[in-house]
Amino acid sequence: MSTASSELSVRDSAFSRVSIRRYTDEAVTPEQIRDVVDIARRAPSPYNIQPWRVVAVTDPETKNRLMAAAYGQKQVGAAPVVFVVYTDMQEMLDTVEETVHPGMGDEAKVSVSAQLRKDYGAMSDEARADFGRGQGYTFMGYLLLAAQSLGYGTSPMLGFDPAQVKEILGLPAHAQIPALVAMGRPAEEGFPQFRHDVDRILRIV
Amino acid sequence: MSTASSELSVRDSAFSRVSIRRYTDEAVTPEQIRDVVDIARRAPSPYNIQPWRVVAVTDPETKNRLMAAAYGQKQVGAAPVVFVVYTDMQEMLDTVEETVHPGMGDEAKVSVSAQLRKDYGAMSDEARADFGRGQGYTFMGYLLLAAQSLGYGTSPMLGFDPAQVKEILGLPAHAQIPALVAMGRPAEEGFPQFRHDVDRILRIV
Repeated sequence: MSTASSELSVRDSAFSRVSIRRYTDEAVTPEQIRDVVDIARRAPSPYNIQPWRVVAVTDPETKNRLMAAAYGQKQVGAAPVVFVVYTDMQEMLDTVEETVHPGMGDEAKVSVSAQLRKDYGAMSDEARADFGRGQGYTFMGYLLLAAQSLGYGTSPMLGFDPAQVKEILGLPAHAQIPALVAMGRPAEEGFPQFRHDVDRILRIV
Repeated sequence: MSTASSELSVRDSAFSRVSIRRYTDEAVTPEQIRDVVDIARRAPSPYNIQPWRVVAVTDPETKNRLMAAAYGQKQVGAAPVVFVVYTDMQEMLDTVEETVHPGMGDEAKVSVSAQLRKDYGAMSDEARADFGRGQGYTFMGYLLLAAQSLGYGTSPMLGFDPAQVKEILGLPAHAQIPALVAMGRPAEEGFPQFRHDVDRILRIV
């Protein structure tokens, strides 16, 4: 594990990241996309279920269709890549054996898988989908910091028609989409951060 | 903005972070707690609403009560500090003017605040709470990476009785608790990461 000297620390990434909606013409290659996701996929999840999946859209025509589904937000069409972060609790459950740590042994793989199918199966479809959607934001937080640390600008978006996005990308109807995230080399400074002070949100007891 | 050379990059933090449930006796000071939260509070949220709040529990008696509410999970009692990450959409709406960027001007402060009260007010109490809870995971992702980058071990937990935790800390009944996060200097290596491969979760189009 080694860090190129040009990669930012978590602190510098978190302090410097603002929404960027204009990008240079520099393409983001498949290898660069995979590198960002390789960092984000390390995010933790309950029982290691990892319900997140991601489509990285670089094809201009597909980006234009996504832009229409995102109410015309220009950064969707302008960004070299748009990540569609989604969660799929059904596919997760169908393949839950793949998420059980091999260090737990073969018996645990069977028993833990059965327990997770039982527990998540007992939830309503809507509650299960909402649960997975929430977990998707842990992945998104990792993704944003990873991109920033590598010199990309990002713009996470909630304003889109989920049904249209699913149709464009062929995602299952039960999938949830925590966010679209546009990414590219920044061509603007963006609006400075404005956040609650530490003591506004933190109590120490 | 400068990074101490000992702070990890996002990549190294994400790659190295695993759940740590045993900690050294080294205390985590209020300044150190504030420093971690100072990084995490930079997380983005829709319309900058920042619905997350956090109680950092260091008091031994309160930690023991929390441990009981977390079904006896030992890391809650053993950690120098346990972060109770919660979201409060009601308090957010009551003070939403504080979240509108001053660069947008006084008129926007009024109109955006009114719009957000209208939009979030139109949701059911449950849907609004669920929405805020999901956003809390962006904050938690930032918090975990921030802690790791500064040399702490962490253990995020979903297994607890929310009503009991709220009662112990005097949180409002409508608050949601995305996670408890135990933190301290690691006294174990932890279980190695086990995650889906990049190509299992990523599609590039």
